[in-house]
Amino acid sequence: MSGRTIHVRVVSPITTRGFRRVEDLEALGHEGMIVSGSQIDEGPGSIECEFETAICVPDTIAKIVEAERDGADAVVIDCMADPALRPAREMVRIPVVGPSQAAMHVAAMLGHRFSVVTVMRRLRAQFENAAAIHGLSTRMASVRHVEIPVLELEDDLDATKVALVEQARLAVELDGAEAVIFGCTGLLGCAGAVREGLLAHGIDIPVIDPIPTAVNIAAALVRSGLSHSALTFPAPPQKELVGYPKLRAALPLAAE
Amino acid sequence: MSGRTIHVRVVSPITTRGFRRVEDLEALGHEGMIVSGSQIDEGPGSIECEFETAICVPDTIAKIVEAERDGADAVVIDCMADPALRPAREMVRIPVVGPSQAAMHVAAMLGHRFSVVTVMRRLRAQFENAAAIHGLSTRMASVRHVEIPVLELEDDLDATKVALVEQARLAVELDGAEAVIFGCTGLLGCAGAVREGLLAHGIDIPVIDPIPTAVNIAAALVRSGLSHSALTFPAPPQKELVGYPKLRAALPLAAE
Amino acid sequence: MSGRTIHVRVVSPITTRGFRRVEDLEALGHEGMIVSGSQIDEGPGSIECEFETAICVPDTIAKIVEAERDGADAVVIDCMADPALRPAREMVRIPVVGPSQAAMHVAAMLGHRFSVVTVMRRLRAQFENAAAIHGLSTRMASVRHVEIPVLELEDDLDATKVALVEQARLAVELDGAEAVIFGCTGLLGCAGAVREGLLAHGIDIPVIDPIPTAVNIAAALVRSGLSHSALTFPAPPQKELVGYPKLRAALPLAAE
Amino acid sequence: MSGRTIHVRVVSPITTRGFRRVEDLEALGHEGMIVSGSQIDEGPGSIECEFETAICVPDTIAKIVEAERDGADAVVIDCMADPALRPAREMVRIPVVGPSQAAMHVAAMLGHRFSVVTVMRRLRAQFENAAAIHGLSTRMASVRHVEIPVLELEDDLDATKVALVEQARLAVELDGAEAVIFGCTGLLGCAGAVREGLLAHGIDIPVIDPIPTAVNIAAALVRSGLSHSALTFPAPPQKELVGYPKLRAALPLAAE
Amino acid sequence: MSGRTIHVRVVSPITTRGFRRVEDLEALGHEGMIVSGSQIDEGPGSIECEFETAICVPDTIAKIVEAERDGADAVVIDCMADPALRPAREMVRIPVVGPSQAAMHVAAMLGHRFSVVTVMRRLRAQFENAAAIHGLSTRMASVRHVEIPVLELEDDLDATKVALVEQARLAVELDGAEAVIFGCTGLLGCAGAVREGLLAHGIDIPVIDPIPTAVNIAAALVRSGLSHSALTFPAPPQKELVGYPKLRAALPLAAE
Amino acid sequence: MSGRTIHVRVVSPITTRGFRRVEDLEALGHEGMIVSGSQIDEGPGSIECEFETAICVPDTIAKIVEAERDGADAVVIDCMADPALRPAREMVRIPVVGPSQAAMHVAAMLGHRFSVVTVMRRLRAQFENAAAIHGLSTRMASVRHVEIPVLELEDDLDATKVALVEQARLAVELDGAEAVIFGCTGLLGCAGAVREGLLAHGIDIPVIDPIPTAVNIAAALVRSGLSHSALTFPAPPQKELVGYPKLRAALPLAAE
Repeated sequence: MSGRTIHVRVVSPITTRGFRRVEDLEALGHEGMIVSGSQIDEGPGSIECEFETAICVPDTIAKIVEAERDGADAVVIDCMADPALRPAREMVRIPVVGPSQAAMHVAAMLGHRFSVVTVMRRLRAQFENAAAIHGLSTRMASVRHVEIPVLELEDDLDATKVALVEQARLAVELDGAEAVIFGCTGLLGCAGAVREGLLAHGIDIPVIDPIPTAVNIAAALVRSGLSHSALTFPAPPQKELVGYPKLRAALPLAAE
Repeated sequence: MSGRTIHVRVVSPITTRGFRRVEDLEALGHEGMIVSGSQIDEGPGSIECEFETAICVPDTIAKIVEAERDGADAVVIDCMADPALRPAREMVRIPVVGPSQAAMHVAAMLGHRFSVVTVMRRLRAQFENAAAIHGLSTRMASVRHVEIPVLELEDDLDATKVALVEQARLAVELDGAEAVIFGCTGLLGCAGAVREGLLAHGIDIPVIDPIPTAVNIAAALVRSGLSHSALTFPAPPQKELVGYPKLRAALPLAAE
Repeated sequence: MSGRTIHVRVVSPITTRGFRRVEDLEALGHEGMIVSGSQIDEGPGSIECEFETAICVPDTIAKIVEAERDGADAVVIDCMADPALRPAREMVRIPVVGPSQAAMHVAAMLGHRFSVVTVMRRLRAQFENAAAIHGLSTRMASVRHVEIPVLELEDDLDATKVALVEQARLAVELDGAEAVIFGCTGLLGCAGAVREGLLAHGIDIPVIDPIPTAVNIAAALVRSGLSHSALTFPAPPQKELVGYPKLRAALPLAAE
Repeated sequence: MSGRTIHVRVVSPITTRGFRRVEDLEALGHEGMIVSGSQIDEGPGSIECEFETAICVPDTIAKIVEAERDGADAVVIDCMADPALRPAREMVRIPVVGPSQAAMHVAAMLGHRFSVVTVMRRLRAQFENAAAIHGLSTRMASVRHVEIPVLELEDDLDATKVALVEQARLAVELDGAEAVIFGCTGLLGCAGAVREGLLAHGIDIPVIDPIPTAVNIAAALVRSGLSHSALTFPAPPQKELVGYPKLRAALPLAAE
Repeated sequence: MSGRTIHVRVVSPITTRGFRRVEDLEALGHEGMIVSGSQIDEGPGSIECEFETAICVPDTIAKIVEAERDGADAVVIDCMADPALRPAREMVRIPVVGPSQAAMHVAAMLGHRFSVVTVMRRLRAQFENAAAIHGLSTRMASVRHVEIPVLELEDDLDATKVALVEQARLAVELDGAEAVIFGCTGLLGCAGAVREGLLAHGIDIPVIDPIPTAVNIAAALVRSGLSHSALTFPAPPQKELVGYPKLRAALPLAAE
Repeated sequence: MSGRTIHVRVVSPITTRGFRRVEDLEALGHEGMIVSGSQIDEGPGSIECEFETAICVPDTIAKIVEAERDGADAVVIDCMADPALRPAREMVRIPVVGPSQAAMHVAAMLGHRFSVVTVMRRLRAQFENAAAIHGLSTRMASVRHVEIPVLELEDDLDATKVALVEQARLAVELDGAEAVIFGCTGLLGCAGAVREGLLAHGIDIPVIDPIPTAVNIAAALVRSGLSHSALTFPAPPQKELVGYPKLRAALPLAAE
């Protein structure tokens, strides 16, 4: 399996058009891997709370099922809440990678403790709960935020980067972080600037940009012939579903 | 607040009609507390996997918002996956109680370790993840199952009870449980028989029937003037939502 | 069992008379529940250390046994050290509720992390050990104190409330608390003022007054037909006891 | 301090006379260390439950205070429930060592995981709670029991030893133990026989006899000039105590 | 960086020649990635204990330094004890990947719990300690072994595979594993057969072959522009070293 | 065994001569115990990183084997990284004590939480990993440092002591420590001054000097007839070793 070109699909679980540019995704490809994108049609404009995390799930599942039918080798979900990660894994057999899960595991491999620097304070509990489920609570130093909503991150990108550097610096100096993860995939492309900003303070740590990292991890899984466990994520039982016509069509016949 | 009659609404997040009988819910009331029920219109027929847990959420949130508008003092979600618990808490200010969360905390108060006896093996990871988020992993002895689907539990109720006693007994003897929780709210009313079955084996432990327990805990919260934290569950930000017209109507104006 | 009026007894494990007013306890009742009080005759004037926590235990057990003989349906121990909780549970079959244990589990249900605001610094280890035993260490944000001894809390009640608000605010802003528990039952009745004080700082979180909460949880257990596990808390073995005549009389014949 | 002869007092918190022989304690001494014993006058005949663990505490504290006044350099409590350990440490400044705490830390130093083999099943929760407080839950493999009451251990000492070997063997083979602790100080002197019994099964692990181990650890603390932290265990506040005349006399004037 | 061909060096920390065939390593490459191998000159013939894990370290560090000088983009250590992982990371700035660390994090991403199936029982503590350091103890179901020494694994490869399938099956059925990792890199190439053997028992889980997985993860790190944290792994201080001439030559001038 | 004079050997795993004075070690002896010292010939001048911790191991193992052949009853390793602790335990049957492991367990016995005050910031991860392996993460409050290299600690001993008091004070006031451990054995003899410095700030806590503590714990193990578990640390398998002639000579014949 390892010889051929791998196709990774990135599914954006928000309805705002133009926020995620397809050329930014395609630029993540290289010889041996191509990256494509898709986006949900129904759901929130962006994701900054438990409600929005939940409400994007039905259409995100549909887009992940579609990706498998399109022949993608793996899917990455384009949101640090990892919405639909677990239900979608029950619906497809290609690897589905959550950037939050992947980035936390990569950070834990690279440094002693990591911090997440995200957009809004209210996401702290979500990230801490995610770390608890991943088994990584003891490796998470803190969750910090810049208090800039997702859709305003690019309004003043320089201010955003300055705020990211400041919170990352505090994560290192006050919380004991030795690696940093962006807590929003909307920050794609800022890692270089933030790493330089930290180096200017004498802080030399990995700054993890979740989407490129998750895409490369997805490819690594494909190259290794691995996907999520069918024991943890068996196909849903065959059963009536009221509403959600796109998903009804996607439901596999129960394996049983 | 403690003097008046309390109204607890039980919201069933499945579309199968006739499974949850309203008279069973009303019978949970007593002087000072009434219990009512409602049920979702769109979603799965029953809940036995991550996909079904996720797909019932949008309409469950809508029914919880409706309960608050109906004047209910508290809501209990009628499923041991606690679907919609966290997003719904962002949408209402009355207490929203998940029977899994409530039963685990009650079990931890009553005995040294508890086990969950549920319907299907595949739910084990979900319950273990829930315990991790509740902070109760060290108090959970095991998750066991009878391998009977939800909608077949009542086909041969005696066989179901025998299977429950057997798994509860093994939880005590092999896994170290000192209390047991039913891992499906469809088992409402079986606690007495299972407790007697265990006593016949010389095992005298609490057998927790999640819906009555959650309803009484919900009333206790109301009597104590308590609800979920607005810092953990602030109202969602004001933002465009594509689709989900019932929820669009329900969205509060952002507090900010 | 759920239809009748429930009787909850609150046992005060201190010998100072007049500190706990019976009318404050009776006011916690409502239609369907009455609350009564009793107090130990031998032991410390108040409880602020491990020594006093230990030395109140023999007479507290005797008063809990007495409560069961008086026909109470449940007992709440009137001290946040939960003294006698575990030994008393071996002596009676009605639910015995510790306000610290109950308040911590309720707080964990309502918010992401909780802090305890108690009277003296020296109690920090006791609360952290209690959380470890309850399995809730990961949900406790911090233990803070106002450094006012129990018997002086009411000397300047306004100053006490100001100090409580200040420590609760720091718990939220520095320690990450999203709910707060009073760490002394002597603070009964202060929750409203502290919650308002926090709201004035823009902090909207549950403030848990342990005695009302524990009384309502005790009633919820009775309504649900639940008590502590007889496997965790079997009756003591039949055996000679030198001294403690009140307890000798109370000792059940061993079950064995 | 390290040059002189050290005096360790072993305080037995049970009222049964003749169970703990003073010559067995004295035999633990050697050049540079002497061991003496004392015993409580009021309390249980033996300790096998939470009630008995609690009820021996007042007189045990009194005997520990007496030991310090007698010039002992350290005290060891002669029970694996470590009764009075924390309150007594507030009353004296010489090291007070609990054999359960000491044995668990020593076991954790010597092998990967340890099991406790105790007398009765009902003590399992107490030992697991103790491990949680000591921070050693992850190092405890299991708590096993021989179901022989304390005062009957010597009725058929050979049968007792056979049962100990059997449970220790199962702890190794089924639970993953790599060291074993006796869970009752009444088993003093059995370690050699149990270790030989295990060797006959090809199992070469430390078998920890808690009283000799705790006595030697106590001496090591004295030689190192160490005692318990006065920040964790400050003297009790000065305050009225009703009853307990021996303890009233012992109460230090509050340091404050 | 992502466009060019990546070179991953696999360093074998054992002195036995012929055990690790270079063509097996080269076969892990694909378009965009080449894999090369090297092997230590001084140290143990194979690694099955703490002593051998420690004694291979000096020369393994030297070979990793050499890999960086040879222009490799990343290094994978060819042993599931991850020997030299932490000290070598202080000596080079290219990513150094331990197959045990990488495989555990990948397994935790793919399934609820994972088990390690290794060669000898005595390695259990080492793997459990590794999981504790990685923060993954709660995700590890068990460590099982086939009791076949490393250098005898290929003597009867069919018997080895049968034993692997049997232990993996028990890990799933008794210990709750939902993914399996080979606990010895000498098992390279057996994953397909073991996965098929499990499928024949109706068990459909990921079987992780550590070396291919670690090589692909190493490439993913390089593609993502990431390496280990220089805050966790700063260069060693400049200081005299007696002996170890190869390492003396390799020591970087201290950054300070 | 308890009657005779015990001989504890302290092995210094650094090559700098004159740093560890033999008379300082001998002064730790008393009636019934003598202390001797030895030092490695090949390895680092001091130990302040993972590289140096690893590279001292081969010769430290050799010196520990030599100690057993010299008739020592126990060995203490003279470095807070506990280098060679686990591999050396496979090579000898006398107790091998790591001062870090011993001091952490003793601190956990004496106070609620402990902090380590060490020399360099970069050692933080090593101490936190050690606590994770010992099972004591929940009892460790923090790791602090004075940023003075080992070999410069004595250049201005008064300044070193002032820095130690300052960091210990911050550990208590900011991190919640209630006991303190020196994180470098080069600080031997400073405990009295640091304890006095803390008392001058009103802080009365144990200050643990690791070498005297470890030596006395080693003697306590010998007096108790205990050593490390042969199940956790069995002798290495018989196998070829290339290089390391001193160790080849020391290798026991495999037990098998």
